[in-house]
Amino acid sequence: MATLVLHHQTSPAQDAEALHQAFKGWGSDGKAIIAILGHRNVHQREEIKKAYEEIYQENLIKRLESEISGDFERAVYRWMLEPADRDAVLMNVAIKNGPKEYNVIAEIASVLSAKELLAVRSAYHDRYKRSLEEDVAAHTTGHLRQASHFHTNNLSLLVGLVSSYRYEGDEINEKLAQTEANILHESIKEKKANYEEVIRILTTRSKTQLVATFNRYRDEHGISISKKLVDQSSDDFVKVLHTVIRGINDHKKYYEKVLRNAIKKFGTDEDGLTRVIVTRAEKDLKDIKEVYYKRNSVHLEDAVSKEISGDYKRFILALLGKQD
Amino acid sequence: MATLVLHHQTSPAQDAEALHQAFKGWGSDGKAIIAILGHRNVHQREEIKKAYEEIYQENLIKRLESEISGDFERAVYRWMLEPADRDAVLMNVAIKNGPKEYNVIAEIASVLSAKELLAVRSAYHDRYKRSLEEDVAAHTTGHLRQASHFHTNNLSLLVGLVSSYRYEGDEINEKLAQTEANILHESIKEKKANYEEVIRILTTRSKTQLVATFNRYRDEHGISISKKLVDQSSDDFVKVLHTVIRGINDHKKYYEKVLRNAIKKFGTDEDGLTRVIVTRAEKDLKDIKEVYYKRNSVHLEDAVSKEISGDYKRFILALLGKQD
Repeated sequence: MATLVLHHQTSPAQDAEALHQAFKGWGSDGKAIIAILGHRNVHQREEIKKAYEEIYQENLIKRLESEISGDFERAVYRWMLEPADRDAVLMNVAIKNGPKEYNVIAEIASVLSAKELLAVRSAYHDRYKRSLEEDVAAHTTGHLRQASHFHTNNLSLLVGLVSSYRYEGDEINEKLAQTEANILHESIKEKKANYEEVIRILTTRSKTQLVATFNRYRDEHGISISKKLVDQSSDDFVKVLHTVIRGINDHKKYYEKVLRNAIKKFGTDEDGLTRVIVTRAEKDLKDIKEVYYKRNSVHLEDAVSKEISGDYKRFILALLGKQD
Repeated sequence: MATLVLHHQTSPAQDAEALHQAFKGWGSDGKAIIAILGHRNVHQREEIKKAYEEIYQENLIKRLESEISGDFERAVYRWMLEPADRDAVLMNVAIKNGPKEYNVIAEIASVLSAKELLAVRSAYHDRYKRSLEEDVAAHTTGHLRQASHFHTNNLSLLVGLVSSYRYEGDEINEKLAQTEANILHESIKEKKANYEEVIRILTTRSKTQLVATFNRYRDEHGISISKKLVDQSSDDFVKVLHTVIRGINDHKKYYEKVLRNAIKKFGTDEDGLTRVIVTRAEKDLKDIKEVYYKRNSVHLEDAVSKEISGDYKRFILALLGKQD
């Protein structure tokens, strides 16, 4: 379930006018911006952008960028993009930021459905005039020149993930789950430098099949594959693998952990916080909040409130469904 | 331009009835089958399948399979599938046939547009309940266990090709074309066991960009990259690479060569012949025929006539646009 709380909208044009009003004077009225944009769904936001452009001959997103700043700006900017386009932007930023954000690429590619990922690839074409896999491959190969198996593995894993178009039927091949649970076990145990088989399995099998394989792994070895991975190694490639496995296995639990780490981090990881909240507010953030509460015995809103401030805080809390 | 010659169709139901009539008695009437199916476009063929199913409660394709046989059966079967579904079947057969048919996988993936390839991947899901890249990866990895760089390269190249969703804009980055022409040159010259960069370039760049890169290569080195490749090595991986480069550079010339080799081959390569003719008859087989004539000073119909016979010959000639 979503957390976004929709307020009554008279018309997109009225919203556009109210926003225009909020931009007036020195410094704009953050509360007024949040009162509108923080309570409109993706369709309404698109309509507001159109109405604003028609009335004021100006791009609303660009205007917002010049009116507000910092974490608030970044969150509003992401929020104002359509989901596939937003993910294309998040992917592009992560690609440019290099290895430390490879997990973001892996996260988006692993959590999305086959059709959603395709929409992101198409949005990426439109926005950047290149393909997503092209940029991922070119950038990871760049790092690859200071070569090591780490980079070769990352290249195959990330390109495989963003290029995947997984089968989404319910069929499970139990025998295959057994065989591939063994392959995963052997590869991880031996800390092979060459993770070719692991990458093949994780990038091509259906999610239903993979969950069966992970279950088989746990039944046989008394520990989940993601825990085993973390126990075994802490190198960056393994961290990316870990993201993939968690994202496929249970993306709500995965997101809970991203939020927990973002809040726990010294100085707070606002980008991670914004990414999860903006991306999931219209989808299943309510479920993620519940997972968070169960895990931490504190409400996500309360935990977030202590870490951030100002309009950014007000906006994030609005998306989290907090009523004023 | 297409070669398919459409004849007047009264109704799909009448076609279905005429086919039913042709199936009667001992051995069916091949000429009657060809007179209908060899002169109907993809939309009409779909309508005939529907009408036949409705009237006779029987699947037309299955009935055809039991009525006719050999190369004729195989050609008619492929012809009766919708293009994306047909390519899914061709891919699946090639995957199962192993290394000697990897070039077929490469051909289809390189010649199709991004959207067409996607339709094939979707048809593959529907038909086989697995993803195309999943089957390609699992099968090439099977061979990979008798491992060598050849197989590792094939795995990355083929999976990269079938998973690609290339950007299709007209933009060319000249500097990049230069850089990557050099990378291709160095990799081929050194006969590197590791073709990682070559694979990255060929599987991710837009076709327009790749053609610019190939042109740059020829300008610099006085020889086309495909010729250079063949001069340099004859291993099977290089043959697959060669298919990719030719398929992207000029798919009509590429198909001409497939036809030429199929005809030249001792005993004729009927599968290759059928594949090209069935696949292109409604698209650009007329152009391919012209390329063939220019190259061989003999008409494709005449060359084909000498090599094959019976209903298979009649059917292939019908698709080639020969009027009775």
